[in-house]
Amino acid sequence: MISINSDLGEGFGIYTLSDDEALMPYITEANVACGFHASDPNHMKRTVELAKQYGVKVGAHFSLPDLQGFGRRKMHLGQGELHNMIVYQIGALKGFLDMLEMPLNHLKPHGALYGMAASDPDIAETIARIAHHYQVPVFGLSGTCHETIYKAHGAGFIPEFFTDLDYDQDGHLVITQTHEATDPVNAAKRVLKAVEHGKVTATHGGEIPVVAQTICVHSDTPNAVDIARAVNEALQPHLSHQAHCTADKD
Amino acid sequence: MISINSDLGEGFGIYTLSDDEALMPYITEANVACGFHASDPNHMKRTVELAKQYGVKVGAHFSLPDLQGFGRRKMHLGQGELHNMIVYQIGALKGFLDMLEMPLNHLKPHGALYGMAASDPDIAETIARIAHHYQVPVFGLSGTCHETIYKAHGAGFIPEFFTDLDYDQDGHLVITQTHEATDPVNAAKRVLKAVEHGKVTATHGGEIPVVAQTICVHSDTPNAVDIARAVNEALQPHLSHQAHCTADKD
Amino acid sequence: MISINSDLGEGFGIYTLSDDEALMPYITEANVACGFHASDPNHMKRTVELAKQYGVKVGAHFSLPDLQGFGRRKMHLGQGELHNMIVYQIGALKGFLDMLEMPLNHLKPHGALYGMAASDPDIAETIARIAHHYQVPVFGLSGTCHETIYKAHGAGFIPEFFTDLDYDQDGHLVITQTHEATDPVNAAKRVLKAVEHGKVTATHGGEIPVVAQTICVHSDTPNAVDIARAVNEALQPHLSHQAHCTADKD
Amino acid sequence: MISINSDLGEGFGIYTLSDDEALMPYITEANVACGFHASDPNHMKRTVELAKQYGVKVGAHFSLPDLQGFGRRKMHLGQGELHNMIVYQIGALKGFLDMLEMPLNHLKPHGALYGMAASDPDIAETIARIAHHYQVPVFGLSGTCHETIYKAHGAGFIPEFFTDLDYDQDGHLVITQTHEATDPVNAAKRVLKAVEHGKVTATHGGEIPVVAQTICVHSDTPNAVDIARAVNEALQPHLSHQAHCTADKD
Repeated sequence: MISINSDLGEGFGIYTLSDDEALMPYITEANVACGFHASDPNHMKRTVELAKQYGVKVGAHFSLPDLQGFGRRKMHLGQGELHNMIVYQIGALKGFLDMLEMPLNHLKPHGALYGMAASDPDIAETIARIAHHYQVPVFGLSGTCHETIYKAHGAGFIPEFFTDLDYDQDGHLVITQTHEATDPVNAAKRVLKAVEHGKVTATHGGEIPVVAQTICVHSDTPNAVDIARAVNEALQPHLSHQAHCTADKD
Repeated sequence: MISINSDLGEGFGIYTLSDDEALMPYITEANVACGFHASDPNHMKRTVELAKQYGVKVGAHFSLPDLQGFGRRKMHLGQGELHNMIVYQIGALKGFLDMLEMPLNHLKPHGALYGMAASDPDIAETIARIAHHYQVPVFGLSGTCHETIYKAHGAGFIPEFFTDLDYDQDGHLVITQTHEATDPVNAAKRVLKAVEHGKVTATHGGEIPVVAQTICVHSDTPNAVDIARAVNEALQPHLSHQAHCTADKD
Repeated sequence: MISINSDLGEGFGIYTLSDDEALMPYITEANVACGFHASDPNHMKRTVELAKQYGVKVGAHFSLPDLQGFGRRKMHLGQGELHNMIVYQIGALKGFLDMLEMPLNHLKPHGALYGMAASDPDIAETIARIAHHYQVPVFGLSGTCHETIYKAHGAGFIPEFFTDLDYDQDGHLVITQTHEATDPVNAAKRVLKAVEHGKVTATHGGEIPVVAQTICVHSDTPNAVDIARAVNEALQPHLSHQAHCTADKD
Repeated sequence: MISINSDLGEGFGIYTLSDDEALMPYITEANVACGFHASDPNHMKRTVELAKQYGVKVGAHFSLPDLQGFGRRKMHLGQGELHNMIVYQIGALKGFLDMLEMPLNHLKPHGALYGMAASDPDIAETIARIAHHYQVPVFGLSGTCHETIYKAHGAGFIPEFFTDLDYDQDGHLVITQTHEATDPVNAAKRVLKAVEHGKVTATHGGEIPVVAQTICVHSDTPNAVDIARAVNEALQPHLSHQAHCTADKD
């Protein structure tokens, strides 16, 4: 069973970053920012409401404390304070989920923390212990500490494939500051190959193996809605019942 | 049944404001700051842990978003955004309570928001609806919107008496920027009179009626621990079993 | 002599609010946000550089400390702390101006503080004293405390007319949360009437007197660039030499 | 000529960290926090006023943007954004200096940034270029990038010796989270040996060479005032005229 996730609720104050509502019909899980790299109580409330309205599950997209840097700058933290920051952010999001009687579905570290957890077993363990406490899985990259450490500490792990990021020949993501528009048809084909054949064409031109159980569509890619729609259509046979191209909007 | 509460966890980063652990043996409820006027994830974690260790119940001490002003500056907010800010803060605190399997015991707005809720029915209603959702009571001033509005919306209300603040002849609190040292013996006598006779000597010299079901000892009064100890001793016959002068510290 | 000003540098982190560079050719003064309601060191640096490149003068657009509320929520501050906040913000902006050897041209309070200074003489005086210290004028509304108090304390005052805000029959601005697109031709005509005849049609349909020495074009109005271009063309005979429709971009 | 410096103005909001006024009589230079790791406009104003009153020179003590971590956590920043952050902070401080007609005397990076600049030539160069622009020297550790890079870019460099930090056998500072009380007499002797003989006993028991042109007394060491007084007395023959044990307090 495949799912489609997107990082949403990433506005702040009067600023917006993506058209979250337009994406909702094509995704199955929303990773909602918790106020440390983006979002604020108003954006979180609205994003959780939208998710409920569209039948989209909600996970916590927690971050390093770096609003000005959008959580994309590495910081050196002790494991204790990192643990506390994550608990704070998940709790804050659960406040809104509780109000709407929605469960917390999963965890996904954001930005620099996502990358740090992939390579640093201590950071991955801190995340794993919290995921185990909440009994929810963590989205991450297969073959990294995401997978090995999360599993080792009894947390669920869901391997994630990125629609709009390149992979190098070692399977590492090529992280970019901004996400560029991609042809939706090609994006959908690429995703389908990853899901059905476990392969992606890497930057050196050859194919490398990937594991794709949840597909991430970045919400701030210029044509994100078109990509999400195309990926959703291509994946229809693989999606669980929550995914649907037509949503009943009240 | 009477309880003794204190506003704790009000440090931030390397800053500390009070000796929270020294107060724990003498109080029954801790109002824990949630990061908007004071505290941060580390301080919240430690305060909740201390409360558990000493058998002290924990309530959410939420605030306007004003760390530099310690939540003591009035701000004009819409009810929707105020609601969202409060939900965010309570949720963040519950993150730490959940980790230690402790329940949320009560709510208490902080500083300027406490005063605003006393006189503004819309603000009191916003708080009342959240308290009703969580099925926890709110600490506040009897005879103000705290009492009338909280009760009108089905939320519990617990009238609060302040050990170290003066009341004017209309029963209004005389709010001060800093809390001055008070003679513990006199403070305890004053509290006992409020509890047993429902009276306090106001600033004009005459007695006014007060309702005192929970007693607040401010943690940043210079001799807060002495005051808390004296009040705790004086109130022994009135305290529920959670209050105790000797705590088993592991 | 008439000038055209715009509130610029109002992005934050990865967020942008307006196309500042596209506006530069049509304005004579940029009011640059100083990090309290919007902007950050990177946005300030870039905005000041753009201003230099286009020959646009720079003023400090300081605010209440409210990034999440974009400085549009009233806060109650003491005059001492307000003074200090303004000095901090102006100083920070001057850091970037000094680097490029540009002078500070003027002051303009932002958002809620703009409104508060119009009606509260204490706040206006705090601003006036700082303007006097820096020997720069303040942009504001004629007939309010902006004018009377600034002048009374020896600060320069430049009456400001808003391209995209309505005036009620008492001459008060009708403040809106967002700025709507306006027909550029009509906007330019309205500005020209204000400048040449000192009149504007108010919301009740009748004409009221206005004083328009500097014209504000809000940068976040959807068609802000079109409006600025039209206003700039209409005002050509009234503009000082700094205003020009064609800029030499290096 | 020797000077004595201290990191001051490190309170925030209602929090205070040290008794800045008590230290003023014994130091010649105050490194004033600029709001990124500590301080706020009110604390900066008061600290600059105190410095003027006591004839103490003021330098900018700028930091990474990390109030909760007191600027002690490493962050990975690009040189452009680091440059902008430093310019912002120095400018903000100069706002207060300008008001009191005091010059900016020097620069000193704080906490993690101090350490990063010692070992990373790019960071040291960013600081050097700003120091060169303002024509002020930078305090730092001799034999590190502080010295080599600052000098290479035409910035002044003043080697700093720490009263209350240990040095290991390679001359590296042993950084601690908190500063412990030290015997003032021993501290003064140690400083005098560093100044007069260029030597300090390192943690391995042997002596290593040091260069001590300015002596840092940390303000948050518990007995900071006693240490500062003892160091000041011991250094009397070496101090420039600004240093004095008796200050005329208005």
